[in-house]
Amino acid sequence: MPNPTAAMLVIGDEILSGRTRDANAYHLAGVLSAAGIDLLEVRVVPDDHDVIVSALDALRGRYTHVFTSGGIGPTHDDITADAVAAAFGVGIAVREDARALLEEAMARRGTAASPDQLRMARVPDGARLIVNDVSGAPGFSLGNVHVMAGVPSIFRAMLDALLPGLQAGVPRESREVRFEVGESRVAGPLRDLAERTPGLTFGSYPFSDGDLRGTNVVVRGTDPALLDEAVTRLEEIRRAVS
Amino acid sequence: MPNPTAAMLVIGDEILSGRTRDANAYHLAGVLSAAGIDLLEVRVVPDDHDVIVSALDALRGRYTHVFTSGGIGPTHDDITADAVAAAFGVGIAVREDARALLEEAMARRGTAASPDQLRMARVPDGARLIVNDVSGAPGFSLGNVHVMAGVPSIFRAMLDALLPGLQAGVPRESREVRFEVGESRVAGPLRDLAERTPGLTFGSYPFSDGDLRGTNVVVRGTDPALLDEAVTRLEEIRRAVS
Repeated sequence: MPNPTAAMLVIGDEILSGRTRDANAYHLAGVLSAAGIDLLEVRVVPDDHDVIVSALDALRGRYTHVFTSGGIGPTHDDITADAVAAAFGVGIAVREDARALLEEAMARRGTAASPDQLRMARVPDGARLIVNDVSGAPGFSLGNVHVMAGVPSIFRAMLDALLPGLQAGVPRESREVRFEVGESRVAGPLRDLAERTPGLTFGSYPFSDGDLRGTNVVVRGTDPALLDEAVTRLEEIRRAVS
Repeated sequence: MPNPTAAMLVIGDEILSGRTRDANAYHLAGVLSAAGIDLLEVRVVPDDHDVIVSALDALRGRYTHVFTSGGIGPTHDDITADAVAAAFGVGIAVREDARALLEEAMARRGTAASPDQLRMARVPDGARLIVNDVSGAPGFSLGNVHVMAGVPSIFRAMLDALLPGLQAGVPRESREVRFEVGESRVAGPLRDLAERTPGLTFGSYPFSDGDLRGTNVVVRGTDPALLDEAVTRLEEIRRAVS
């Protein structure tokens, strides 16, 4: 059975304007890779209702899962929950279990939830909450769309809560072989090896280290024996081109 | 006249697998922001010919510019140039001016260009070269698609070479006001201010600093007087909520 697939939708003007460097896509990519869920696309879009709705529509039919980050706080630019409700054509309102989680977190900090904070308890009809211990304000899953916060510590906490409930695939393992020669010297034999080994994918990444121009070759796949065999072949190539 | 718009297409399995954290989108976002070109979408896709072609087709009709990074080296996984040629329905071959740039760079390093390196001189018909001093191997522009390397130092050099030739817009400036209260305390007055000031966009970004939970409010727009006025209003709000 093929692995489940995924896309990520990063929502936020601050990423596109260059103010903030997104950290969540990189974190999600590593976590999904280890879980055997194949991340096949990432999109970054602005805080714009119609754009978010059409991105959700494009992605949720194409992949097993869509993970979103950003736009679920208490302010006017937090419009993700409404966009998800609109994409699914369902209603959205403050929900008692979400409100209870928020009020509990507020009480621990010795304050009461304000009307603006209660916006964070608005959840589309039929969604399942994604709890987090960092802020208290929950994310949610609706269908195959998992809606999480943009603040990296909260995003990570929500992903930790969500992941055990998702069906895992076969983790894609990777091996890396370092060549101390430029990419062009590796290209020919690497192409031959890749053509002979359709069960694996080979990537080649140039690096420079002082005066040295080298190449890291990364081979990825789900079969450890095939991966070990490929590493042996790569080491033979390394001896031949060094 | 509205600002030119842009999308970025990041091409590379290594980003989606979590091996590499992309750095080019963040760099491009800052550079375009300063140039008054509005970056409205970023997509990350794998090294897959058909996927790259359909992403190019989706983006190049929608935005003034499409900037790509990745997949233009000498190895079998470098398929961007072919995908761009296919998306535009044009041929692709080694071109003499591109070959000359490559051979010059090789000569400076005291080597000759190998057949695999010559792959990097393959350019779609009708493209304009984007030079770079770091590797010598050129990127290219075809129509409104600008094809650059994934290695960050080369990407930046190509962007520096490309940008002066693109029509600039009105730079969007931003001002930031730091609130030492949580986002919910700012939400109400900020929403009112945003509604009263349609020429600007307001973003609110929570932060924590030890025990302090604060909020950075960022206001963006093209009219400096309007921005200054908004900062005065935000400072009034800060006095009121502190």
